[in-house]
Amino acid sequence: MAFQFRQEVLFRHCDPARIVFYPRYFEMLNDCVEALFATMPGHTFADMHANRAVPTARIETEFLAPSRLGDVLEFTLTFPRVGRSSLHTRFVATCDGETRLRAASVIVHVGTGLRPAPWPEDARAALMAHHEETSQ
Amino acid sequence: MAFQFRQEVLFRHCDPARIVFYPRYFEMLNDCVEALFATMPGHTFADMHANRAVPTARIETEFLAPSRLGDVLEFTLTFPRVGRSSLHTRFVATCDGETRLRAASVIVHVGTGLRPAPWPEDARAALMAHHEETSQ
Amino acid sequence: MAFQFRQEVLFRHCDPARIVFYPRYFEMLNDCVEALFATMPGHTFADMHANRAVPTARIETEFLAPSRLGDVLEFTLTFPRVGRSSLHTRFVATCDGETRLRAASVIVHVGTGLRPAPWPEDARAALMAHHEETSQ
Amino acid sequence: MAFQFRQEVLFRHCDPARIVFYPRYFEMLNDCVEALFATMPGHTFADMHANRAVPTARIETEFLAPSRLGDVLEFTLTFPRVGRSSLHTRFVATCDGETRLRAASVIVHVGTGLRPAPWPEDARAALMAHHEETSQ
Repeated sequence: MAFQFRQEVLFRHCDPARIVFYPRYFEMLNDCVEALFATMPGHTFADMHANRAVPTARIETEFLAPSRLGDVLEFTLTFPRVGRSSLHTRFVATCDGETRLRAASVIVHVGTGLRPAPWPEDARAALMAHHEETSQ
Repeated sequence: MAFQFRQEVLFRHCDPARIVFYPRYFEMLNDCVEALFATMPGHTFADMHANRAVPTARIETEFLAPSRLGDVLEFTLTFPRVGRSSLHTRFVATCDGETRLRAASVIVHVGTGLRPAPWPEDARAALMAHHEETSQ
Repeated sequence: MAFQFRQEVLFRHCDPARIVFYPRYFEMLNDCVEALFATMPGHTFADMHANRAVPTARIETEFLAPSRLGDVLEFTLTFPRVGRSSLHTRFVATCDGETRLRAASVIVHVGTGLRPAPWPEDARAALMAHHEETSQ
Repeated sequence: MAFQFRQEVLFRHCDPARIVFYPRYFEMLNDCVEALFATMPGHTFADMHANRAVPTARIETEFLAPSRLGDVLEFTLTFPRVGRSSLHTRFVATCDGETRLRAASVIVHVGTGLRPAPWPEDARAALMAHHEETSQ
C-alpha cells in the first residue's frame, strides 16, 4: 500500500524561472519519508535522532515536467525492498494526473558512529506495509 | 579539463545527525554549475534568466561517505556529452582524497515557455572545454 | 481575529545543535503569510506573482526558547496596521503554551518594477479581518 | 575593525520575483558569522558544535533595496558589544555602494543544555577586535 503525501508548491520552493528549484524537491522527498516515519511509534525522526539516523545512500530522480507555484503535488511512496538495514524507496509525484517526478533511493538505518544497524522488528513490519514490487 | 569548485561544509548544510543533509548537496551541485556558467560571458545565470534557463531533467547521486561541518569538499565537474540543447554532467566530490559523492545529471537549455533551445555556439564551445569521456 | 498556522518542526529545519536553525523560522513565517494569502481569492501568491509581489521591508524577531525536532509550533498572525500599500504583521509562535518566537514585520505590496502599489479593495478587506491593535 | 564578507547572489537565493528571498539573507548572515568564527582557532563552528553553540536570540533587519541574481554583496560585521556570554552584532550589506540590508542581532554563547556560558578569554579577545561603538 503506497504512502500518500501531499505538498503544495510554495514560494520558498520556486526559483527565478518560476518553477520548483530542484534541490527543493529533495526537501519534499525527505519530508515525505519523515511523514511516513511519523506514523511509526518509537521510530519518528525525533525518536530516532538521539542515536540513530536514516541517511540516504543513493538517489536517482527524473524531473518529467516543471511544477509551478500553487501546484498541489501528490507523492506516493512505496518500498520495493526492505533490507536488513536498508530501505529501497520509490517515489512518484503527480499534479492533476501529470507525473512530475519519479525517484528511487536507498536509505540506510544507522546507529552509533553512523554504522548500519538492522531495522528493529516493529519498524520492519511497519515499513513492509508499504512494500510493493515494481515492474519498472 | 575538469572544472574545479571548492565548498566548505557550513552550518547551514548540516542536520541533527551532524552530517550534510542530502538536499543541501544538490544546492552545492547547483552552485558548482552556476560557478562554471559564471565563467562564460553572456551565459551567466544572471544573463540567462531573463528568457532562458537550464533546468535539471534528471540526476543520480551516490553518497559514499558522510561529510561533516568544516570539511572542505573539492568538486570536479566534467561533461561526458554536450548535446544540441542538453548537457550531461558528471560530478565527483572529495575531501582529503576520500570520495564523498558521485553524481551524474542531464541539464537542458530552455528558452521561452521552458522549451528546449539549442546551445548558442559560444556557449557550446565553452562547455566543450570541460568535455570528458567517462569510462564509468 | 488571528490567523492560525501550524508547523511541525521537521528534520530540514534543524541544525547540528538539534534545534531549529533560525533562518528556517523565516521560511515558516513566509509560509504562514503565504497560507493566509491562499485564503484570499485572486491574491494567492500564485495569482500575484505574475506582476505583483509582497516583499518584506523589515522584520524583527525574538527567539525566546529553542524548538526541537517534532515540536508542533502554533503560529498566530495578526496585522496591527494595514496601510495603503503596506502591511504590518505580528507573529507569535508557541509550543505547548510556551512562547518560542515573536516577530513583527512590514510587508509591502508592489507592482511592476517592484514599486509600491495600493492594496486592491478586496485584498484590504480580507487583510482587515486579521487586524488587531497590539498593546505590546 | 569590521569583518568583511563577500557573497554573490546565487540562483538558490532568489525567488519567483527574481530577487533574494528574505530568509536566504539570514543564511548569508549566518555564513558571515561562521566565517568570522572560522578565523578564531579553537572556536570555529566545527570546534564548537561538540558541546557549545552560538544561537541567535534576537535579530532585526531592514531590507532597504532588493538584490538580484549576480549582485555581489559586501557584508561588514561589527560588534557594538561583547557581553559575558552574549555578542551584539551589526551587519551592513552593500552592492556597488548601495545599502541593501542592515541588521542587528544578539547571539548567545551556550554550553551543555543550551545554557549561556561565558566566552573563553581568547574568544572574547578575538571578538573584541571587531568591537565598534555605533552611533546609530
